[in-house]
Amino acid sequence: MKVAGKAYRSIWLDDDGWSVRIIDQTRLPHEFQVVRLVDLEQAAHAIRAMLVRGAPLIGATAAYGLCLALRQDAGDAALERAAACLLATRPTAINLRWAIDDMRARLLPLSPLQRTQAAYRRAAEICDADVAVNRAIGEQGLGLIRQAAARCDRRPVNILTHCNAGWLATVDWGTALAPIYLAHDAGIAVHVWVDETRPRNQGAGLTAWELGGHGVPHTVIVDNAGGHLMQRGEVDLCLVGTDRTTANGDVCNKIGTYLKALAAHDNGVPFYVALPCTTIDWTLGDGGQIPIERRAAEEVTRLSGRADNGEIVAVRITPEGSAVANFAFDVTPARLVTALITERGVCNASRDGLLSLYPEQAVNA
Amino acid sequence: MKVAGKAYRSIWLDDDGWSVRIIDQTRLPHEFQVVRLVDLEQAAHAIRAMLVRGAPLIGATAAYGLCLALRQDAGDAALERAAACLLATRPTAINLRWAIDDMRARLLPLSPLQRTQAAYRRAAEICDADVAVNRAIGEQGLGLIRQAAARCDRRPVNILTHCNAGWLATVDWGTALAPIYLAHDAGIAVHVWVDETRPRNQGAGLTAWELGGHGVPHTVIVDNAGGHLMQRGEVDLCLVGTDRTTANGDVCNKIGTYLKALAAHDNGVPFYVALPCTTIDWTLGDGGQIPIERRAAEEVTRLSGRADNGEIVAVRITPEGSAVANFAFDVTPARLVTALITERGVCNASRDGLLSLYPEQAVNA
Repeated sequence: MKVAGKAYRSIWLDDDGWSVRIIDQTRLPHEFQVVRLVDLEQAAHAIRAMLVRGAPLIGATAAYGLCLALRQDAGDAALERAAACLLATRPTAINLRWAIDDMRARLLPLSPLQRTQAAYRRAAEICDADVAVNRAIGEQGLGLIRQAAARCDRRPVNILTHCNAGWLATVDWGTALAPIYLAHDAGIAVHVWVDETRPRNQGAGLTAWELGGHGVPHTVIVDNAGGHLMQRGEVDLCLVGTDRTTANGDVCNKIGTYLKALAAHDNGVPFYVALPCTTIDWTLGDGGQIPIERRAAEEVTRLSGRADNGEIVAVRITPEGSAVANFAFDVTPARLVTALITERGVCNASRDGLLSLYPEQAVNA
Repeated sequence: MKVAGKAYRSIWLDDDGWSVRIIDQTRLPHEFQVVRLVDLEQAAHAIRAMLVRGAPLIGATAAYGLCLALRQDAGDAALERAAACLLATRPTAINLRWAIDDMRARLLPLSPLQRTQAAYRRAAEICDADVAVNRAIGEQGLGLIRQAAARCDRRPVNILTHCNAGWLATVDWGTALAPIYLAHDAGIAVHVWVDETRPRNQGAGLTAWELGGHGVPHTVIVDNAGGHLMQRGEVDLCLVGTDRTTANGDVCNKIGTYLKALAAHDNGVPFYVALPCTTIDWTLGDGGQIPIERRAAEEVTRLSGRADNGEIVAVRITPEGSAVANFAFDVTPARLVTALITERGVCNASRDGLLSLYPEQAVNA
């Protein structure tokens, strides 16, 4: 999507045809800094230190990380070492393992001489496929926004989102934000309520930044405010992403999503979840079985921002002696989800709903 | 309550018998700084700049501010000027007007020679009455915590609270925290989940600090986390304060309270609200009629904390171009409130419930 009028993806090949460009997302929203990756170590660091984040983008970065490794040594041992190095960067992202396994399976049968070129070709395909899937999610969700717009009688459609499921989390478009970008580009008036999304502030830092860059009207609110806005009738629909959806339609997403879904249900506001089929976990019967990651206390106790002198500074906001708990995700039960939006269509958040779009999974589900 | 083993109130008369001591709450949780107020201007500044906050404490500070003014000029005109000056410090706190009107009504009939001494006597009475009311709320709520403890089979009772309704918001004890302090002092094992309470972080900054000072076990969480904890069965009851309760039992409190009440309801967790009768608005039939204060965007866009060099620094956390909305309160409908805890007892959140404790209001309600 656009940054100050110019179209970007979150990862791309440099004009030199081999080095890789990413946006340092740790500097957002304060600085737009493009970083060049020239070797495996830099690619692994970019994932580990969260210069890139979001499962699809992590997978794409790992794919290009293998390309960079193969340029230096395309032998079997080097390929396996590079794969292991990249796999160790983040513990949970499913796309990371998927992208690395996919690349390994395609490259190992080739002779080392053929590998590098094939790797770059496949990495580009992985990126393009992600863009196509997200764009398809956008098209499917666009219909729902059009319907809402018809009910809004020319005032903007107010959409509440939580966390960042935008183009910065994928290669382009995003999942939850894809329908919003398409609606905006189609001339439908939309306005987005952006949840700050404590503790890592992906809403205030990333979602607000990318919506602003593309010119989509939006307002940042604290995570506490969404319920009040829904009570006042100022939210027409909620639209969020998900990290994992179970076979019954339960949705695991950034901590706090459940609270917004409760408020939406209490106020008759539709609550939509956008997802690529790769995030459906057909092996889990319900969300209660999803392990919830607990993360470092520092994410809660410390917070970074821009000081008046322009420097980016981390400050402590809790008392020294206080314990802190930091759960990264929660599970929104399917009963609170109005519909799921996937690249194949819109369905009920239920086993039957998902199987209507993915009948080939009937043996697994 | 205690700070590092020593008992404090949030406002007290200095040993000199006339100047007034307060805690600079803008420095918490990073610094415990006691400030001495010697004249009207300093008292007004303490309220305006929020060195003191919380409706009861604002009222007490205003009462002492009048005392300090009268020491310099006890004439009618000076008294009225001082009252007007203090009244202008904060727009909404009901206790501020109440305390000033009460003092004026008692002092104006006296001769200027008698006024100063009478003012100090009345200010002390206002403080002592606040402490007594809060202690009574504590005793009433203690029974509910005892009942919960009986169901917890010796593990600590897990209590979730939002914002700061502790001794720092009153003269001592607090409202929502009074039952918790009494339970802790009585040897009942309690553990408090402290909502950070964005945007002003009264939970992370004040509630965590005062619970820590008094030795009450607690854990700070982001506002997004409470629903997940309730789903996991890690909250035995919620206990919050309120800024205004309408005649039907609707509760207006810090933004985000409604979301926690929804989660409590969805998970069968009791949701209690503690309040002195002075915060009941018998003139409003329901919470929909309460005007909700919108505050400055800077409360959302900027955040203060302690930098690694020890300095307290404000940092910006949102993109420059993004709009921000900042609603200070929301309304939790009575249907989500398990019971109200007042200085007179525990009642249903309903007109009948409130009238059972305050039958003298039947003519108003």
